[in-house]
Amino acid sequence: MLFSRLCKSSELLLNKKRILLFFFTAVNAVSVTAVWPMPQKISSSIERYCVRPQSFIFQYTNVSIAQPGCSILDAAFVRYFKLIFPDLLRDPGKRQIYYARPMAKPFTVWVGVSEGDCNGYPSESSKESYRLSVSSGQALLRAESVWGALRGLESLSQLVYQDGYGAYYINQTEIEDFPRFPFRGLLLDTSRHYLPINAILETLDAMAYTKLNVFHWHIVDDPSFPYQSKSYPDLSNKGAFHPMTHVYTQTDVKRVIEHARLRGIRVVPEFDSPGHTQSWGKGKPDLLTPCYRGDVPSGTFGPVNPILASSYSFMAKLLKEVTSVFPDSFLHLGGDEVNFSCWRSNPDVRAFMKKMGFGTDFTKLEALYVENMVSITSALNRTSIVWQDVFDYHEKHSRNYVVEVWKMEGYQCKMRKVTKAGLKAILAAPWYLDLPGPTHEWARYYNVRPLAFRGQSPHRIPTDTVLEIWKGLPPAYAQELSRITGAGHRVLLSAPFYINHIRYGQDWRDSYLVKPLNFSGTEEQKRLVIGGEVCMWGEYVDATNLSPRLWPRGCAAAERLWSDEEQTSSVDAAFPRLTDFRCRLLRRGIRAEPLFVGHCQQEYQGL
Amino acid sequence: MLFSRLCKSSELLLNKKRILLFFFTAVNAVSVTAVWPMPQKISSSIERYCVRPQSFIFQYTNVSIAQPGCSILDAAFVRYFKLIFPDLLRDPGKRQIYYARPMAKPFTVWVGVSEGDCNGYPSESSKESYRLSVSSGQALLRAESVWGALRGLESLSQLVYQDGYGAYYINQTEIEDFPRFPFRGLLLDTSRHYLPINAILETLDAMAYTKLNVFHWHIVDDPSFPYQSKSYPDLSNKGAFHPMTHVYTQTDVKRVIEHARLRGIRVVPEFDSPGHTQSWGKGKPDLLTPCYRGDVPSGTFGPVNPILASSYSFMAKLLKEVTSVFPDSFLHLGGDEVNFSCWRSNPDVRAFMKKMGFGTDFTKLEALYVENMVSITSALNRTSIVWQDVFDYHEKHSRNYVVEVWKMEGYQCKMRKVTKAGLKAILAAPWYLDLPGPTHEWARYYNVRPLAFRGQSPHRIPTDTVLEIWKGLPPAYAQELSRITGAGHRVLLSAPFYINHIRYGQDWRDSYLVKPLNFSGTEEQKRLVIGGEVCMWGEYVDATNLSPRLWPRGCAAAERLWSDEEQTSSVDAAFPRLTDFRCRLLRRGIRAEPLFVGHCQQEYQGL
Repeated sequence: MLFSRLCKSSELLLNKKRILLFFFTAVNAVSVTAVWPMPQKISSSIERYCVRPQSFIFQYTNVSIAQPGCSILDAAFVRYFKLIFPDLLRDPGKRQIYYARPMAKPFTVWVGVSEGDCNGYPSESSKESYRLSVSSGQALLRAESVWGALRGLESLSQLVYQDGYGAYYINQTEIEDFPRFPFRGLLLDTSRHYLPINAILETLDAMAYTKLNVFHWHIVDDPSFPYQSKSYPDLSNKGAFHPMTHVYTQTDVKRVIEHARLRGIRVVPEFDSPGHTQSWGKGKPDLLTPCYRGDVPSGTFGPVNPILASSYSFMAKLLKEVTSVFPDSFLHLGGDEVNFSCWRSNPDVRAFMKKMGFGTDFTKLEALYVENMVSITSALNRTSIVWQDVFDYHEKHSRNYVVEVWKMEGYQCKMRKVTKAGLKAILAAPWYLDLPGPTHEWARYYNVRPLAFRGQSPHRIPTDTVLEIWKGLPPAYAQELSRITGAGHRVLLSAPFYINHIRYGQDWRDSYLVKPLNFSGTEEQKRLVIGGEVCMWGEYVDATNLSPRLWPRGCAAAERLWSDEEQTSSVDAAFPRLTDFRCRLLRRGIRAEPLFVGHCQQEYQGL
Repeated sequence: MLFSRLCKSSELLLNKKRILLFFFTAVNAVSVTAVWPMPQKISSSIERYCVRPQSFIFQYTNVSIAQPGCSILDAAFVRYFKLIFPDLLRDPGKRQIYYARPMAKPFTVWVGVSEGDCNGYPSESSKESYRLSVSSGQALLRAESVWGALRGLESLSQLVYQDGYGAYYINQTEIEDFPRFPFRGLLLDTSRHYLPINAILETLDAMAYTKLNVFHWHIVDDPSFPYQSKSYPDLSNKGAFHPMTHVYTQTDVKRVIEHARLRGIRVVPEFDSPGHTQSWGKGKPDLLTPCYRGDVPSGTFGPVNPILASSYSFMAKLLKEVTSVFPDSFLHLGGDEVNFSCWRSNPDVRAFMKKMGFGTDFTKLEALYVENMVSITSALNRTSIVWQDVFDYHEKHSRNYVVEVWKMEGYQCKMRKVTKAGLKAILAAPWYLDLPGPTHEWARYYNVRPLAFRGQSPHRIPTDTVLEIWKGLPPAYAQELSRITGAGHRVLLSAPFYINHIRYGQDWRDSYLVKPLNFSGTEEQKRLVIGGEVCMWGEYVDATNLSPRLWPRGCAAAERLWSDEEQTSSVDAAFPRLTDFRCRLLRRGIRAEPLFVGHCQQEYQGL
């Protein structure tokens, strides 16, 4: 009743004070464009409709292939009802009333899809395009597949906003939307720190809000092996931080995959080898290469032992299990940062090298190992992804894997080379959000002593001094420019180049300005770039700080991977939209940190 | 019952496998030394006593001046019972049983104080020393004041640990402890972002865990004025981000002060003026100086107008209210970063300058203003604290304030100057935890290309190459040193100097290595350094990311301010202790981020 009264009072106001309200509406209309990531085509008017939870319903269109009983869309309707009307969550009593009593002026969201993939999993070829049309009393959402319908529901939920009285509105809007890249990933590292299942599920929620669609689960690594394997239970019994509390059981994994599926998110597991496997050795004693000091084993171990048949049969059995658990067609094999010193120290490995005619080139040994892994994966009907190291080591070998480019230095060049070799590429390098930023670039920006002038007025400084403007966002330093030049000084502007402050200030801007296709190459090469990925490695990250490090910074990459680059080329235009969207994330319980000074209508309360 | 059985099974084990248990005990004994901050004197043996919640009680000694009814200690006993036995919180049913059924072998904590300041507030002169002696079946805690008893209870709570079966133990221990500095502060900024009361209360909890004892509440500033004043309600009605949801009511403030009092924490409010007052102007129209463009007001405003009597009467009334609300003897007047350009533009201000004979030296005008504020504060029987800017501007003037040194550049030199002038000093500069780190130092460390050798073995690189070791903690890079020099390379070690990675990696180390008295000066000067302060400014911080940015990084400063410097000079020795303490913070619900790869027995679950 409250909401219905609110809408009416606003409507009365409309009749009485049309001019005032026009202004008010126009101000509110800013919210309307705050769909993040920016749709490919969106137009909206200032005409707005009041929507009331008690008369807001989702319906399948008559022509829709999916109908009630479609697990994905049925669940999405329940979820998005709560997301659209977040106030109701606070008062479960009210919620029931709203569900039970449809009123005179309903708002109906008609949803229709032309393919009924309701029980399937999202895949490389999922169609995510949709059309959304909002008019008086209804919204019409059409998509080829349920995955596109999910993206459209997300956009719809972001179109709804509240006025100062708490009433909900949506403006007349037309959207035609599709993703720029099919692979929009996010990596979590659950080996360096264990992430409780809830942290993973919450991250999947936020991924859906930003239309990211691949959860790259870097599930095991050197420090721990939390995946509880059916075939090799000792791997986690002995290799996890704790065999009971710090593991992912089969049930946990199923829960993650289903939670992701319902949100149109693929789950691509990574079992990185032959390096990054120290924790594996604890539960599988002969797997790793014994390192030698001189003629005797040193007691330490290196990468997976590539000269033993048992290593390959173990990996084959493990990967077979992995593909039976994870339905996605991609499997990440890792292959990065293999340290050859242990292999080199081992006399058996050296003998094998000789027998194979590899000389002292251990990259050939790694190539042999990875070729085998790729073959195993291929036989399991899966596509391999590998880190760029594998491509670097044997450019002329196998062609049947996807290359993930992760090294910042010269990543554009690497993208060119990978695609020129006819391989698909995923770009991760500029989106290592756990890192302070592009280390190769900023040092040259930093030979300044910015604090020297802090707190001093330009008028107290001799006018032949050049003043360096080192702080402030674009509007602030523009004011400084005018103030200081007004006092007769020459100015050196360094503020916008303080990208070393990446972890302190507005480092999302760097993520935002990445141009994934900005390398010289043919159109065909560009088509091989299937997408990009946000990486959140775990050295310094666990459930205590995961969300504020990921969000809203990850949103910048999400828009870069979904939206049209030309329409989203301005970080300054993005700033108010992202500020708005960050408040929406807070409202949905995601602990997204602030972009800058300011406030949200509802601050984070879930302490 | 569970706990009692656990203790017994361990005791049985003791009889059967004495050697094994001896080792086990010795391992566990590591936990015993993990009192943070390090006490001045602590000795403990491997002799340990099982403590059971159902037979664990706090008692006042007969000679204690404080007895049952002492609000501070009564509340502390309840609080520390829960902190010592955190498992019980999970099951309220169990808790009652434990309270109700004292058993055969009780463990009694005897607490005695020789001053009964049970209803007072902690102050500059509070005595925080204590002695704690843990032996079979009892702990004896003696302190001069209740404030010392609180510190002792905190140490006691950190001595208790759990074995792998969940049984609780405490080792035989003797502690004699007192703080190095009386002022151990933490600043929160509630103007740039509003912090919900719960975020402040939780921070106070964590301060008590680390023995920080002054909450410096930077409550208002340019962006917003959330303090709801009785005398001037329009200040928050018009100057807060929102007049209802983003304010601190009188009740809120009382709640913060009482929560702090019960933990022995002073609350020092800051009402920063004459600069940093943009938000004040909204609710008090004539307070700020109108800026001029040429001969006409530009419509913008500068600092508080220092030439109007009304400004001073307003400030007098406001500060009078503030001192009636905040009982602490200190009042922070700010005084930093005053921008003189607006004063200079204003013809009335210029005329006043002329009349006063100040010439064009606006620092004299600021000095005049601050002198008045200090006088007002003094008349209200309060000690003023000011930021160092005030000292810089009129070294030869007033002597009755405490100076807070906040600028990183040359802070040792500034400490010398302030104390040489006979003024008390507080050091904040090296503990700006919101910032990426000491900006003046690290640039020279950064002319390197560390990634060049990533993933390559030293054996593949010509031996005349100098290898730079850029990553890793001390043990890791020490291994690298031996590995690389073993391969015949010269080595350049930069790993320990990557202090620019301060926000990414182990930046707590820099906080830890600060030496507050490391300046040339007499003993008398050194005594004027009353302490230091962790600053958490709010540009990029709100309730979403406050805790992980503060903790465990703030703990490093806390130990520096409490403990003996010589005993705590090694960061490497501190590392395992702090890792341990961080897990204890997690256990207590504080979202402290990880120091490095690893795990805690109980991970953070409060998502």
